[in-house]
Amino acid sequence: MNRIPETMSWKGGLDGYLVLLDQTKLPREHVEVDCKTVEDVWQSIKRLAVRGAPAIGCAAAYGVCLSEPELAEVEQACDYLATSRPTAVNLFWALNRMRETAQQTSTLAPHQFAEALLTEARAIREEDRQMCTDIGNHGADLLADLPVGSGILTHCNAGALATAGDGTALSVIFELARRKRKPHVWVDETRPLLQGARLTTWELMQRGIDCTLICDSMAAQVMREGRVQAIVTGADRIAANGDAANKIGTYGVATLAKVHDIPFYIAAPTSTFDVSLTNGSEIPIEQRDVEEITCGFGTPTAPEKVSVYNPAFDVTPVELIAGIITEQGVKRY
Amino acid sequence: MNRIPETMSWKGGLDGYLVLLDQTKLPREHVEVDCKTVEDVWQSIKRLAVRGAPAIGCAAAYGVCLSEPELAEVEQACDYLATSRPTAVNLFWALNRMRETAQQTSTLAPHQFAEALLTEARAIREEDRQMCTDIGNHGADLLADLPVGSGILTHCNAGALATAGDGTALSVIFELARRKRKPHVWVDETRPLLQGARLTTWELMQRGIDCTLICDSMAAQVMREGRVQAIVTGADRIAANGDAANKIGTYGVATLAKVHDIPFYIAAPTSTFDVSLTNGSEIPIEQRDVEEITCGFGTPTAPEKVSVYNPAFDVTPVELIAGIITEQGVKRY
Repeated sequence: MNRIPETMSWKGGLDGYLVLLDQTKLPREHVEVDCKTVEDVWQSIKRLAVRGAPAIGCAAAYGVCLSEPELAEVEQACDYLATSRPTAVNLFWALNRMRETAQQTSTLAPHQFAEALLTEARAIREEDRQMCTDIGNHGADLLADLPVGSGILTHCNAGALATAGDGTALSVIFELARRKRKPHVWVDETRPLLQGARLTTWELMQRGIDCTLICDSMAAQVMREGRVQAIVTGADRIAANGDAANKIGTYGVATLAKVHDIPFYIAAPTSTFDVSLTNGSEIPIEQRDVEEITCGFGTPTAPEKVSVYNPAFDVTPVELIAGIITEQGVKRY
Repeated sequence: MNRIPETMSWKGGLDGYLVLLDQTKLPREHVEVDCKTVEDVWQSIKRLAVRGAPAIGCAAAYGVCLSEPELAEVEQACDYLATSRPTAVNLFWALNRMRETAQQTSTLAPHQFAEALLTEARAIREEDRQMCTDIGNHGADLLADLPVGSGILTHCNAGALATAGDGTALSVIFELARRKRKPHVWVDETRPLLQGARLTTWELMQRGIDCTLICDSMAAQVMREGRVQAIVTGADRIAANGDAANKIGTYGVATLAKVHDIPFYIAAPTSTFDVSLTNGSEIPIEQRDVEEITCGFGTPTAPEKVSVYNPAFDVTPVELIAGIITEQGVKRY
């Protein structure tokens, strides 16, 4: 049933390389990118060929395996990969695990050292896959009382493409579908890069799940029409108090959910939590190129030299979050 | 200073025709469309070469002048033009004026009959121009207490391109600028057709007014950051109780404004009021083609056959509207 190409795979053994599905080309083109150097992985993360907090962590872990099998080189690779994107904490979490593995095995022979790194990267990916499954189960339990055919709205893409497994928010929806709850998914297109339109609808349609694509500006109206019974999105970093950074627009969706009395949930693995931050105001927010807005998908649609504000994320305060679905269960604040 | 090409003009005399600036091509191309038949005008309204409630009314009035100078023909032209778009009531208001003029002058010689119609169309346009000026003055009076440099957010385009004059919402901003209040305008790009990105920024930049383009999904964040002191949009139809239909996304903006304690205003001429409707639930909402969302500006950005919901308007309930700025003053409910 699942005909979705793999988000990422490691080809070969110790001298192998990382193959990524280029998500910037989806859904109309299925192009694979071979990443044979640390720099290739950095570029792929930067330009969003691979995106989604958990998937970025997994890709970066594999990226470390492309460096020379020597502690200094590996640490440099970790430092470098950490500069690719600033907001999703799973990136730093995965790189820290790789760094620790390198430090613990640095006295081994190069071959064994390299093997230890690849084993760790594979473990990170395997754990991510299991985490997706567990999030799906906890989320479906949480939403078990929704009537069959309920509407669930999501923003951006928190699916198989954003993780090594079935996703976070979408894993919940996939599990609800497996349990014959027939969810109807309202998909925000998610400007500027349209991850909802391009990726989320594609994943849902491949799995035969009913969905309707809307512009972000229509979410309020769809809520007002009573078509949405719950909202589930992913997250890129969650502060100690529960404030959660996610794709720009999430804060607006959560605010509108509150006004319309619809529960708003985050689905994210524990690797998304950054307890070193007291609250969401400390989460660094990536600012991206103006061309994402002024020249989307090749056509200039704004005057030249127009001033643009393009934060890639916003922070939803914990008061607006009904619960955070993790692989360990649902956290409430 | 005002280098904006005319939204519409009548070329020639009684045997003349309507010239429209093709707004679907803006801002990068300045193309004029010659409308020499009623059908040409219908098509131009339908495909949004001319858009904005007051401008549609003016264009339709001129369109009636392209029919044969005979009562039955004119009435048929009115009926036909009324089918071009369903939501903006200014269209029906202008067509009713033309129909009444035709009925009152139908016994005149064809030449005089045609002259009466063209005179009425010109009057509708002149009144619209004056109405814009008056709305600008009333709105600038209303916002006179905002600190210099305040942020004003707008959605879609309610400017010179949407009217025969300086606009409705933008007329307020232009007048504030004339009064040296230095407004900074936050412009929602306004998916799917990007009237904010393409038209509003362009009008503001031509007049040297500071503005920043954002995606619709960023409006909540910009409000949260304290950058917006007031919101002004246009409207397409206002019911007797003050509920106002406007471009899809306006309801969400108004809801977010309420949560952030920012006053939300509508600017619209009295021709936008439809007192035959008790409340906003009776306003017909146009549904538009899915391709506007799935294939914006030439590039397919969603899976084939994806299900799409594309209402062109939503209704903002009167409770969310701090005031409606008309040419007669500010109405409060």
